[in-house]
Amino acid sequence: MKVLVAYYSRTGTTKKMAEIISNSLKEQDLEVVLASVEKVKPKDLLSFEGIIIGSPTYYGTLSFEVKKLLDESVAFHGSLDGKAGGAFSSAANIAGGNETTVLSILEAMLIHGMIIQGDPKGDHYGPVAIGEVDKRAQTNCIRFAKRFAQLLKRGRE
Amino acid sequence: MKVLVAYYSRTGTTKKMAEIISNSLKEQDLEVVLASVEKVKPKDLLSFEGIIIGSPTYYGTLSFEVKKLLDESVAFHGSLDGKAGGAFSSAANIAGGNETTVLSILEAMLIHGMIIQGDPKGDHYGPVAIGEVDKRAQTNCIRFAKRFAQLLKRGRE
Amino acid sequence: MKVLVAYYSRTGTTKKMAEIISNSLKEQDLEVVLASVEKVKPKDLLSFEGIIIGSPTYYGTLSFEVKKLLDESVAFHGSLDGKAGGAFSSAANIAGGNETTVLSILEAMLIHGMIIQGDPKGDHYGPVAIGEVDKRAQTNCIRFAKRFAQLLKRGRE
Amino acid sequence: MKVLVAYYSRTGTTKKMAEIISNSLKEQDLEVVLASVEKVKPKDLLSFEGIIIGSPTYYGTLSFEVKKLLDESVAFHGSLDGKAGGAFSSAANIAGGNETTVLSILEAMLIHGMIIQGDPKGDHYGPVAIGEVDKRAQTNCIRFAKRFAQLLKRGRE
Repeated sequence: MKVLVAYYSRTGTTKKMAEIISNSLKEQDLEVVLASVEKVKPKDLLSFEGIIIGSPTYYGTLSFEVKKLLDESVAFHGSLDGKAGGAFSSAANIAGGNETTVLSILEAMLIHGMIIQGDPKGDHYGPVAIGEVDKRAQTNCIRFAKRFAQLLKRGRE
Repeated sequence: MKVLVAYYSRTGTTKKMAEIISNSLKEQDLEVVLASVEKVKPKDLLSFEGIIIGSPTYYGTLSFEVKKLLDESVAFHGSLDGKAGGAFSSAANIAGGNETTVLSILEAMLIHGMIIQGDPKGDHYGPVAIGEVDKRAQTNCIRFAKRFAQLLKRGRE
Repeated sequence: MKVLVAYYSRTGTTKKMAEIISNSLKEQDLEVVLASVEKVKPKDLLSFEGIIIGSPTYYGTLSFEVKKLLDESVAFHGSLDGKAGGAFSSAANIAGGNETTVLSILEAMLIHGMIIQGDPKGDHYGPVAIGEVDKRAQTNCIRFAKRFAQLLKRGRE
Repeated sequence: MKVLVAYYSRTGTTKKMAEIISNSLKEQDLEVVLASVEKVKPKDLLSFEGIIIGSPTYYGTLSFEVKKLLDESVAFHGSLDGKAGGAFSSAANIAGGNETTVLSILEAMLIHGMIIQGDPKGDHYGPVAIGEVDKRAQTNCIRFAKRFAQLLKRGRE
C-alpha cells in the first residue's frame, strides 16, 4: 500500500512535520512518497491508497499552492472515492487558524469521497505545530501516522 | 453489525430523513435502531458499530438536544474510537447553515476518533433537505445509507 | 451602551475569562452584565447593544447549555440584527476544537445578522484559553474587550 | 467611500453575481471597483473601505486564485484592520460546499481584523447561487449589497 505525504512549506516547519509523518508511516511497513505539493500532479494522486496533505496556516485555510493541486484534481473527480485521507498544519500561534486550516483540507477530501478519521487523544482533527515542531507536535505527528496506517490497512488486508 | 440512527425533529422533516436512511440501511442487511436523540443514553452509543446523527439546522449548528447527547458522551470518551459516523440535516433555506450543521456533528465524531466519509456525487458532507424531504433529499438519503453500509462493512468482513 | 457577557463554565476557566473580559469592558466605560448562560433568557438579549458569549470547548462546538439559549433565541429572530457580537472559549488542548467552538458561536451570531470582527494580532476569531487562563489568554481577553468596545462605539457616537 | 468587488469566475456565474452586487452598491451611492481577482494586487486592498470577495465553490473552499491574493495580502497584515468585508459564492449543487466556501473567505477577513455581518433573512453567511444566478440568488445578491452599504456607512458618516 502506497501513501503520499504532500506538503507546502516556506520556512521548513510544515516540511519537518511531513518528514516525521513520512518516517513513521515507513515504520508501519507502508510505501511512502514524500513530496512538495508543487511537484505533485493531480494524476499522481490516483496511484496512492492513502493521501496526507500538510499546509502552513495562511489566513485560516490551506495555502494557495495546496489549493491549486486540489482545484486541479477535479479532473479526476470521483477517482479518489474511498481512499484514506489526513491533514496537518503548522501555525504561528495558538488559535491562529490551525484547526480551520486542517479542516479546509479535510473538507476537500470529503468532497472527493475520501475516508478520514479523527483522534480522541492527540490533535483531534489532525496534527498541528505551533511556532516550531516541538515535542508535543512531534508526538502528535507520530501518533497520527500510526493511526493513519491502521485506518489504511483496515479492510484492505 | 448494528447502526444507530439518532435524530432530533420538531416538525418531522429530520425524522423523515432518519426513516429513509434507516430503511435503506436495513436493505443493506444491517441491524438498525432508529431513535429520537432524547431517548438515547450516552452509554447506548457503545453497542453500535455505526452511528448516524441527524439534526435540524438551528443557527448553523446541531440542535441543543443533539449536543446534549454528544456533550454527555464524554463519559465514554475514547470508546467510540474507530466506529463509523455520519450526519444529516434539514434546513429551511439553501445557504441557511445546513452544511455547517452537518459539519458540527462530524467534528464531534472526529473528536471521538470516529471514521467518516464524504461523497463526491451526492450531498458532499452528508444529506441535507431544504424545506421538505423532496425527491432530491430522498435520493441523497438513500445514496448516503448505501455508502455508509459499505464504509461499515469495510474491514469488518 | 450595554454589553452582555454570557458564559457557561463547569470548572471555572471559561468564567474566569468572562470576568476578565467583563472588567476590561467596564474600563472602557461600558455598562456590562456578566451572567451564566443558564440565567439568561432569550428576551434579555434584546436589551444589549453588544453580546459576547463564551463556552468551553466540548466536542468542537459550543456546550449544549449555550446552544439552548441560542436555539431558543429564535423567538426573537431578526431582532438582534446589527448588534455587535463576539465569542471566546476555553479548551483542554491546543488543536482540541477551540477554534471551531468559537466559530460555532460566531456562526449563530451571523445568522442573527450580528456584526463581528476578527483580530489580526491576538487570537484571530476570539480569545482562547488552553488548560488555564495563563498570561497569554489574559492578554488576549483584555485585547479582545478593548477591540469589542471600539467596534461597539463605532457608528453609535 | 470605495468598495472593491473582487471575484474569480471561470464559467461566468460568480462574475454575474459580482456584477449584480457591484451595481446594487453603486445605487447606494458608493464608489465601486469591480475586478477579477487576478487583476487585483495585494496593495490595492488598502485603498478600499469595503472589500467583497466572490469565489466559485471548489472542494469546499475558495479557489486557489482567490487564495493567492489573500495569501499575498500578508505583506499588508494589520492594514485591513477595521475594514468591512463580505463574501459570496456560486456552486454546482445544494450542500455542495457553498457555505464552507463563503466561510473560508470570511475567516481570512476576520484574521485580517475586518468587520463582517451576517443576515437573518437572506443567505446567512453571504449570497450563494446554485447552478445559475436565478431569481433567488439575484434577490440575495441585491439584499446583501444593501446591507453591506449600511454596514460600511455605519460609524463613518
